[in-house]
Amino acid sequence: MQIELEKILNQNREKIAFGNLPTYIPELTRANKDALGIYISQLDGSEFKAGDYDYKFTIQSISKVITLIMALEDWGAEYIFECVGKEPTGDAFNSMMKLEIVRPSKPFNPMINAGAIAVTSKIKGKSPEERIQRIMDFFKLVTGNPDLKVNESIYMSEKSTGDRNRAMAYFMKDVGVITGDVEENLDLYFKQCSIEVTCKDIARIGLFLSSDGVLLETGKQIINPKHSKIAKALMTTCGMYNASGEFAINVGIPAKSGVGGGIMAVVPGKMGIGVIGPSLDEKGNSIAGVGVLEQLSKMLELSIF
Amino acid sequence: MQIELEKILNQNREKIAFGNLPTYIPELTRANKDALGIYISQLDGSEFKAGDYDYKFTIQSISKVITLIMALEDWGAEYIFECVGKEPTGDAFNSMMKLEIVRPSKPFNPMINAGAIAVTSKIKGKSPEERIQRIMDFFKLVTGNPDLKVNESIYMSEKSTGDRNRAMAYFMKDVGVITGDVEENLDLYFKQCSIEVTCKDIARIGLFLSSDGVLLETGKQIINPKHSKIAKALMTTCGMYNASGEFAINVGIPAKSGVGGGIMAVVPGKMGIGVIGPSLDEKGNSIAGVGVLEQLSKMLELSIF
Amino acid sequence: MQIELEKILNQNREKIAFGNLPTYIPELTRANKDALGIYISQLDGSEFKAGDYDYKFTIQSISKVITLIMALEDWGAEYIFECVGKEPTGDAFNSMMKLEIVRPSKPFNPMINAGAIAVTSKIKGKSPEERIQRIMDFFKLVTGNPDLKVNESIYMSEKSTGDRNRAMAYFMKDVGVITGDVEENLDLYFKQCSIEVTCKDIARIGLFLSSDGVLLETGKQIINPKHSKIAKALMTTCGMYNASGEFAINVGIPAKSGVGGGIMAVVPGKMGIGVIGPSLDEKGNSIAGVGVLEQLSKMLELSIF
Amino acid sequence: MQIELEKILNQNREKIAFGNLPTYIPELTRANKDALGIYISQLDGSEFKAGDYDYKFTIQSISKVITLIMALEDWGAEYIFECVGKEPTGDAFNSMMKLEIVRPSKPFNPMINAGAIAVTSKIKGKSPEERIQRIMDFFKLVTGNPDLKVNESIYMSEKSTGDRNRAMAYFMKDVGVITGDVEENLDLYFKQCSIEVTCKDIARIGLFLSSDGVLLETGKQIINPKHSKIAKALMTTCGMYNASGEFAINVGIPAKSGVGGGIMAVVPGKMGIGVIGPSLDEKGNSIAGVGVLEQLSKMLELSIF
Repeated sequence: MQIELEKILNQNREKIAFGNLPTYIPELTRANKDALGIYISQLDGSEFKAGDYDYKFTIQSISKVITLIMALEDWGAEYIFECVGKEPTGDAFNSMMKLEIVRPSKPFNPMINAGAIAVTSKIKGKSPEERIQRIMDFFKLVTGNPDLKVNESIYMSEKSTGDRNRAMAYFMKDVGVITGDVEENLDLYFKQCSIEVTCKDIARIGLFLSSDGVLLETGKQIINPKHSKIAKALMTTCGMYNASGEFAINVGIPAKSGVGGGIMAVVPGKMGIGVIGPSLDEKGNSIAGVGVLEQLSKMLELSIF
Repeated sequence: MQIELEKILNQNREKIAFGNLPTYIPELTRANKDALGIYISQLDGSEFKAGDYDYKFTIQSISKVITLIMALEDWGAEYIFECVGKEPTGDAFNSMMKLEIVRPSKPFNPMINAGAIAVTSKIKGKSPEERIQRIMDFFKLVTGNPDLKVNESIYMSEKSTGDRNRAMAYFMKDVGVITGDVEENLDLYFKQCSIEVTCKDIARIGLFLSSDGVLLETGKQIINPKHSKIAKALMTTCGMYNASGEFAINVGIPAKSGVGGGIMAVVPGKMGIGVIGPSLDEKGNSIAGVGVLEQLSKMLELSIF
Repeated sequence: MQIELEKILNQNREKIAFGNLPTYIPELTRANKDALGIYISQLDGSEFKAGDYDYKFTIQSISKVITLIMALEDWGAEYIFECVGKEPTGDAFNSMMKLEIVRPSKPFNPMINAGAIAVTSKIKGKSPEERIQRIMDFFKLVTGNPDLKVNESIYMSEKSTGDRNRAMAYFMKDVGVITGDVEENLDLYFKQCSIEVTCKDIARIGLFLSSDGVLLETGKQIINPKHSKIAKALMTTCGMYNASGEFAINVGIPAKSGVGGGIMAVVPGKMGIGVIGPSLDEKGNSIAGVGVLEQLSKMLELSIF
Repeated sequence: MQIELEKILNQNREKIAFGNLPTYIPELTRANKDALGIYISQLDGSEFKAGDYDYKFTIQSISKVITLIMALEDWGAEYIFECVGKEPTGDAFNSMMKLEIVRPSKPFNPMINAGAIAVTSKIKGKSPEERIQRIMDFFKLVTGNPDLKVNESIYMSEKSTGDRNRAMAYFMKDVGVITGDVEENLDLYFKQCSIEVTCKDIARIGLFLSSDGVLLETGKQIINPKHSKIAKALMTTCGMYNASGEFAINVGIPAKSGVGGGIMAVVPGKMGIGVIGPSLDEKGNSIAGVGVLEQLSKMLELSIF
């Protein structure tokens, strides 16, 4: 297995040159474009890792899965899906068009930016501090990593350049999808995106979902398993931006990517996978990371279809 | 099992009243709105059926899955996906908007009307007669039903009222997605949609996909299994019109619906399911049929997530 | 005046190289790209002409103004504007998007292709022959040119390549904007666009509108003056495709262009102007022709604002 | 004349009941829905007034014309139209869709909200205080009313509920159309919209434009007359929201409306007209005010077409 993982990484390294680091968050351009790593965490406790598996990156959009689960636990599915839809959009992750032309006006799903900001705005807490604390605590619990923290310079960079996200948030405030203070909720969102992780951390998130919410350490079911299934269904239809359909065809496992270069993938009932590769394709997914997952899925016959 | 199936049908019958027969194809309004039936065909050869499992209806959009596989077999995936995309759209099945605003101009996926017409236009054959013959032969082979035929009055009804499909086809002709004669290809499309089936027929299509292309009768692999996986991935992300995301969450199995009231569902490696219920919800899916599949999936834990 | 006209033509000739002949109607590529001419016809009977004023070209979209007036005379404004709107779109002349996303579904105005096809479909007549005869007769009457005829090779070229227009027409058939036979009405539309004219002919159309419907030869008012004002208002807001706003700013007189290179302009109460210059800018307007009108408007202070 | 004006007002009063006060700016719902008044100011110095001509209302979108002229004077037309287009949109005044789907991303014209905010962001001044002072001074100069001031409670109401405008502004900041501080520029925009006026004030703005920038009091030309013509052209193609095309047909004079119920109209070379009627039609124009202008235009043959 170890040898095969190394081989897969090597065979996909050449794709790195065809991608790019994202430019719209200045701090992200400091990433190591050539990094490529993988971490696999299985339900039987076994683990495999290769390449730059200990490379640190910000979790970015992968965080959307976790905050969705928190909001579902906080409010129940019925209420949350009154504020955000369940359907893929076919549009870019930062598109606002459907907010304007489709009635009722609500973000199409929790995996695009507008939807994720709406979801984060529902996370309970008496103060901004309590809310970010709850988020951090839940990330630490699910990853089993008590040392997780926000990368402050990336958080500041996102906050100062996040005008498209700000535009979405104010639009949603206008139509009533967001009810609280816009800047407070954007701040939470920018923070959750800036949590620094390694492949291992996101593999552990995947593992958590593969067991529908059982913590590896304690064997305890800590969330409603229905909420885990919702997350995996949405990852499959919308998790890889507007390349989700192609990813379902070529890889066939629920996954969520982030512009930090990470991809978190789940093989239900089997394993969680974390991949890092900061060089992105034009849709915003790790260009080599997608290749790695495709080959891995074929080799181990991981497709859910 | 038999008793449970009957019970599930009975519990979903009340939903029929909240749906409607489609009005845009006049002949379809003659359907029996109250019909509700199911047929399950398992890889081990066992079968279960309940309700109006022998009710006859036209296959409509479920046919898109079969013609996609034929086109993939005729040309290979690379060529076909140059003409049609792989992504869900978030728009209605008869929307043309993305053809105009997204470049390059091609239908987003083979499960919306525009995409399915483009796919059918690729089916090989020296003459229109040979092409429809090939389609009918393949449907007969996959369903194991040599008696399948086109419902002539519905075919004529579709042909005479299919102006929205005609608009799409001419648009695609204009941008080069369709290269042959538009009316000939529309005629093929209207015919494939008008093939008359029962639940058993579509359950057998599902069974065929659940084994990735092995015929139950002969045990022979008759298509590239990759093409079957492509079909199931697309059914999951786009098969239930713009309710595909919700269906993935609530039911969690690859499925394709048609406005004739049928739903063809696949549990990979296990079974094919055919459901009929002509009363449709506002997205165009069988309103009771979706309910039946949701309950069945929960009872038998069929979700792929 | 003669000298000034020559000078204006010469000063705009260099723009020709920055434009292109339209490629989507193959026969139009045979035009003389370098032609540039103008004809001015004043209400006092005086006339001025310069350059290639006798160059023959097809009237194309300029015909939309005349068929609109015919339809208004045939049915009255109230009925016609139930089928087609009065608002500029901001979209390209061949866009269909608003037909899909704005309710009720009807073309935004009679100057874009969809709207003009809808308008032509309303022209009365017992047979296709009678309808085209009525159209030809009215064009001959208004231009005072009994020799006008359809350029057959361009008509055939438009008919065989008009798939985008066909797409629009079938879409409008589907939503009920067009009620008759689609191909018959498209045929009429392709014919009206293929009428061969010179600058003088379109200057005479402009003159006719400048007097709100009085024929120069007879002094007789032959249409409702309200319909002439409607035409001029629509020419101002929508006549130069999606460069109408800029044209209103830079030139400031009601005008309608065609992809044959013609521009018909009206100075209310004063004159009609015909300009020809087949080289088009990227919006589809004569690139040198717009320049000529801008300079002429400034020189003679023709702006209506 | 006086008698006719009274008659026209009376004949249009019944339309008031079919309109509504705007609800999205809470303070505006306090307006007197039944008010209806008109003020006409002619170049020869004569004036006519009727009805509630001294009713006070906020200028709202009518202010867009004045700030456009200021920005044109500050920077010249070439620079300003690099930031904002010249074309009507066909969309609602608060639409953002074209910002997303049309490249390059800039607001279509200065009469929709996005365009007006972009224009205001260009108004020169060393500080926010100096900039609003310059705006107020110019409004006072053009109206000849030194007592103009911002209605503070409406300004506060707009500021606290202007989330859709905020969304547009941040979107434009993201794509580089707005370069300065977003909230500072929004604040200017909310203030300019909240200037309190009467019919006489806006009639004087119309008069100012009818003479292309000559002050009635001094006979002095205080702006480039080209900038006045630009304003009138844009008012004609885009001034009455997405009812501008219909207004051009039915009334035929350059005009700009505001959701405060005012309409400022210009008859070039003749007169300025101010109308107030707070009850709005569904497009956002004074429902009785439009009727008054239509009848007045017919009676006095004011149409520019």
